[in-house]
Amino acid sequence: MKGNSTILVTGGAGYVGSHTVVELLKNNYTVIAIDNNVNSYATGCDKPESLKRVEAITGEQVIYYKADIKDKDAIDKIFKAHKIDSVIHFAALKAVGESVQKPLDYYQNNVGGSSALFEVMAKNGVKKLVFSSSATVYGDPQFLPITEQHPTGQGCTNPYGKSKYFVEEVLKDVCTSDHEWRVILLRYFNPVGAHESGTIGEDPAGIPNNLMPYISQVAVGRRDKLTIFGNDYPTPDGTGVRDYIHIMDLAVGHLKALERIDSPCFKSWKAYNLGTGRGYSVLEMVKAFEEASGKKVAYEISSRREGDIAECYADASLAKRDLNWTATRDIKAMCRDTWNWQKKNPKGFQSS
Amino acid sequence: MKGNSTILVTGGAGYVGSHTVVELLKNNYTVIAIDNNVNSYATGCDKPESLKRVEAITGEQVIYYKADIKDKDAIDKIFKAHKIDSVIHFAALKAVGESVQKPLDYYQNNVGGSSALFEVMAKNGVKKLVFSSSATVYGDPQFLPITEQHPTGQGCTNPYGKSKYFVEEVLKDVCTSDHEWRVILLRYFNPVGAHESGTIGEDPAGIPNNLMPYISQVAVGRRDKLTIFGNDYPTPDGTGVRDYIHIMDLAVGHLKALERIDSPCFKSWKAYNLGTGRGYSVLEMVKAFEEASGKKVAYEISSRREGDIAECYADASLAKRDLNWTATRDIKAMCRDTWNWQKKNPKGFQSS
Repeated sequence: MKGNSTILVTGGAGYVGSHTVVELLKNNYTVIAIDNNVNSYATGCDKPESLKRVEAITGEQVIYYKADIKDKDAIDKIFKAHKIDSVIHFAALKAVGESVQKPLDYYQNNVGGSSALFEVMAKNGVKKLVFSSSATVYGDPQFLPITEQHPTGQGCTNPYGKSKYFVEEVLKDVCTSDHEWRVILLRYFNPVGAHESGTIGEDPAGIPNNLMPYISQVAVGRRDKLTIFGNDYPTPDGTGVRDYIHIMDLAVGHLKALERIDSPCFKSWKAYNLGTGRGYSVLEMVKAFEEASGKKVAYEISSRREGDIAECYADASLAKRDLNWTATRDIKAMCRDTWNWQKKNPKGFQSS
Repeated sequence: MKGNSTILVTGGAGYVGSHTVVELLKNNYTVIAIDNNVNSYATGCDKPESLKRVEAITGEQVIYYKADIKDKDAIDKIFKAHKIDSVIHFAALKAVGESVQKPLDYYQNNVGGSSALFEVMAKNGVKKLVFSSSATVYGDPQFLPITEQHPTGQGCTNPYGKSKYFVEEVLKDVCTSDHEWRVILLRYFNPVGAHESGTIGEDPAGIPNNLMPYISQVAVGRRDKLTIFGNDYPTPDGTGVRDYIHIMDLAVGHLKALERIDSPCFKSWKAYNLGTGRGYSVLEMVKAFEEASGKKVAYEISSRREGDIAECYADASLAKRDLNWTATRDIKAMCRDTWNWQKKNPKGFQSS
């Protein structure tokens, strides 16, 4: 089914969504992107800026609807208007800190919205899905590297992570109830970087939650200095270690998952880690970014942040074996492409 | 706040709901009951038969709205129309077998509906809640008797149980986000029996999922024989052991929880087991029911049912200590009152 089929991409205007749409278009898929634009830069019902740029990068058109996955009638109309083959489901609220403040928003959007989407899918006979999950479902790692067999849902420390875990559980139950469903859960480690063109990238609203956008905003002069939360973790340099993965590698992973779902032997559901399998510390990332950008990144050390863990990195061998997928872009490419995007778009999509 | 305050009871027409409303009215609470009537016997928007009978039992009036907790606008209007002090939240789909067939219905009604209700509560400044949870959140017991410290959410074998667990987690996060919330999670063991008048009781739609209504329907001639799933469990007589609790004891537990929430020392959330602390086997229940009813209950032994566990009973000491609550009705009362209800209402509320 590679190419020539139509993929509905929820949250298509977002960071992972837009980069995945680039890869889909490059591979001759027809893409229908929906987004409620709560985190996208767009005017009215206009196509969001990120998707306009995706079209500029690829020379292909994205069919776009401003729609919320919680609105079953609106989503149903989209399914009725197109012959959709599969769904890649990104749409979700994603700010960890905000989720602690507003848990009901997260449960209603991420769990309620997803359940509504799945109901509309089933009603329209579309039962192939790639779900945007997260390594946060593993909670505090019991062993490293983390395999897909690691327990999930225990010790998830925030509603964002729990909402991802809940949706995974909902999907497992959906697959048990109806054997026509074929679902891949992709558990992302730490997506960073940007498309090599530097025209699309991560554009967080407000103060970035994640390390890489924070570093690049310091480098570009939008923020004074980086705060590093804890340098007394049991890691080589005391700062937290994470498995960073280039966004374009991640995007490719979704296409591999779509192909896998269409292989004759695939049934029910399966979870895959998408990571490099190697961890980098905060200080290593700062150093690599300074080298890639030629800019100094000022930082201060602060105390540990509640809920943070010392180390987290993937065992990515299952995705290699089953999906024939492996991350190919290294830390230099991650930093170079982040900086390229940041430098060209100091205020993100608003710069346009 | 005992008496004189107004309690919103969601799912007020249901089995646990209606019996709790009796106790609330007896104790001078004003009750606003809402129900979407998917499992109640009612004509149009008329007050459900169960609530009419509650009024007959108590001589008090129940304010009733036909409303679905998923409908935020409708619920908001009810909060605006009354000065509600606390909420007892029963409304949920509750058939374990059906939940395996239709997981999305369970997640949307039980988790999505509850989240919507909590949002409307917060918006209206009502932040005191008693939630109808279940011992199923404990999954397959790791130790017996089960205390409230037993892990939850691990090995929940069906979407019904998971949906209860998810709502518990949502509520914990709500309490973390806003310290004004005061929540009690009541984890029911196996509610049985009926009000001593025999005018209200359990009225399952279709084939009963639970043992006691099945036994009583056999005794009254609605069903040929009871099927016992497994007599090779590691229990004294080989049949499954459960902690049955009289519905009127359970109802009283909710009033004790309301009082507890209003005590000055109570804050955030707390979970309590509501059970007797003693298990009875299927065969013991059959025998006790035969004695109470004077009827023979035919049964056959079948193989184990997937997901069933051998034994489950509560450590109910925390509820005794904190809530000053303890079950007072024994197995004889449970069987006698079930039979009284069944005999007077062989077809449940439809008999009227």
